[in-house]
Amino acid sequence: PQVPASPAPISMAAVTSVYGHQDLEQVPAVFGKDTDPNCLRRRFEAMLRKGQESIVKAIEECDGEGKFRADAWVREGGGGGVSRVMAGGKVWEKAGIGLSVIYGTMPTETINAARQRQANYATKELPAGERLPFFACGLSCVMHPRNPHCPTMHFNYRYFETEAGDWWFGGGTDITPVYIDEEDMKHFHGVYKKVCDKHDPDFYSKFKKWADEYFLIKHRGETRGLGGIFFDDLNDRDPEKIFAFAEECLNNVVAAYVPIIEKHKNDSFTEAQKRWQLLRRGRYVEFNLIYDRGTIFGLKTGIGRTESIMMTLPEIARWEYNHQPEPGSEEEKIMKLFKQPREWV
Amino acid sequence: PQVPASPAPISMAAVTSVYGHQDLEQVPAVFGKDTDPNCLRRRFEAMLRKGQESIVKAIEECDGEGKFRADAWVREGGGGGVSRVMAGGKVWEKAGIGLSVIYGTMPTETINAARQRQANYATKELPAGERLPFFACGLSCVMHPRNPHCPTMHFNYRYFETEAGDWWFGGGTDITPVYIDEEDMKHFHGVYKKVCDKHDPDFYSKFKKWADEYFLIKHRGETRGLGGIFFDDLNDRDPEKIFAFAEECLNNVVAAYVPIIEKHKNDSFTEAQKRWQLLRRGRYVEFNLIYDRGTIFGLKTGIGRTESIMMTLPEIARWEYNHQPEPGSEEEKIMKLFKQPREWV
Repeated sequence: PQVPASPAPISMAAVTSVYGHQDLEQVPAVFGKDTDPNCLRRRFEAMLRKGQESIVKAIEECDGEGKFRADAWVREGGGGGVSRVMAGGKVWEKAGIGLSVIYGTMPTETINAARQRQANYATKELPAGERLPFFACGLSCVMHPRNPHCPTMHFNYRYFETEAGDWWFGGGTDITPVYIDEEDMKHFHGVYKKVCDKHDPDFYSKFKKWADEYFLIKHRGETRGLGGIFFDDLNDRDPEKIFAFAEECLNNVVAAYVPIIEKHKNDSFTEAQKRWQLLRRGRYVEFNLIYDRGTIFGLKTGIGRTESIMMTLPEIARWEYNHQPEPGSEEEKIMKLFKQPREWV
Repeated sequence: PQVPASPAPISMAAVTSVYGHQDLEQVPAVFGKDTDPNCLRRRFEAMLRKGQESIVKAIEECDGEGKFRADAWVREGGGGGVSRVMAGGKVWEKAGIGLSVIYGTMPTETINAARQRQANYATKELPAGERLPFFACGLSCVMHPRNPHCPTMHFNYRYFETEAGDWWFGGGTDITPVYIDEEDMKHFHGVYKKVCDKHDPDFYSKFKKWADEYFLIKHRGETRGLGGIFFDDLNDRDPEKIFAFAEECLNNVVAAYVPIIEKHKNDSFTEAQKRWQLLRRGRYVEFNLIYDRGTIFGLKTGIGRTESIMMTLPEIARWEYNHQPEPGSEEEKIMKLFKQPREWV
């Protein structure tokens, strides 16, 4: 299905980004270059694309006013993507879901470094100083609501392979409230535990712990939010089985997240609560710019489109020197959870 | 002179940071552990301390309302510092000047990597897997005014040495306006050209270019601001000569910056101009968290005190997806200068 691209006039300055990404007038039906629509790469793209559209629809319905624009782009080195972004919604101040389908070559050193994260990839050591063809396809999302009682949500599902025979899946969905509602956390984690349990009884406990470790802001000694699931380098079984797991994770984003927003979108809040939300958004920025693998990989290799990476940042973030929550306050209560993750289900 | 530390009660949570920095009740007169007050290390600390106090005084006078608090701290591994921070001033929404005097040991790999930036250090290669004693002393400052016609200013002057015989100075002062006033830029760069010329006729052109290169936000293809001077790894002459140069640079911060603020602090501005300022503050955050050497070194090694590093971030920053300034606008005019640095004097 062809979605019309953003109608805003494209200035020359906007057309070519610093890394050679170009905006398109129309969103193509397929970004991948494989001709066989039944190969895993094409099916993974199609699955992510379908998920992107259905999440856009559900979020627009819940918001009631905001609409997602569609910006399609191609990349000089191969591939492209489409970023769906809602700015200035009634419920969400900023929500973005970006698809990237990238073909290209990368230095063998990068591949070798990636392999060191896990032992069971293709065993052939790659000679340094060469470049190797790769394929990467992923869908990334961050949604920042206005109301401090509505949590921010992030997910990312991706598939990566190289011509040397390496392949892996990665992904996860996680939630970042700034005030704690235990029932919401039980619901969110419960949805993902149920999805995980259908595919492997070990998945939830393993991937929940991985999220708590991954989303740690090391220099603060606190997590970004209250976790969810996270996995990377997953290639220990039939790729079709991991594909099916990733698909079911993606298809449960709305069920895990939207009921929490429906419950809280009309909650009243104070200026002080809004300020606390903005301070926590500052922490979100710290995590994303200092530790997030996708952000750093995308920006430093030049493979990512800068605006599509930066769309994950909140509209507004705040930093106050040496801010400490009041003892006994709701702010202190959630800070303790950021410093000491717990089980929810 | 003993400055009373911040009178706010210190909660237990605040006392011990993630990296083992502890807050002090009083600001000690000296942080360095050398007993000879005439050694270069002690004199460099004293010089920075004097600069810190005189800049605090000048900024408080110009602000008219805001006062700097003093937070002194010590570090488990050796050394300490004092952060002077003004929050919620009339002219500045956030201004911080932090002194750090750090003794300790660091992995020889870190030293070897630092040496590779420049060839003429001590030639002895250090065995990997060991730790080497080092000394680092620096004064860092960022000031973010409220008024979009008043630029943000940053400086940093530092001295570093190891027991293997490496030593070097680094530093610089740079300015980040969000609207262009050519006279202001001629004044700011003119002050530093005059300082540079007194010490070496090559310094200004070399260090001005270095600032333009260093303060580049690579993933945006634009500079953070309109530069100034920047130097690092400077050890090509008698250390006393570089000391004198750094001292004169520091002593000219007020002359270079405060007249610009006096000129514009009462300028009227619109909501749209304020919004543009916050968008550029978003870029400031991107630079500091992704590229700034001091931030990354401080956070990743755990040597820095997190709150003292993060005090350089603005009170509020903003991100809008794919924002493009209007053709022919003042915003577009300064964007062109960020994309193509020019000479001012």
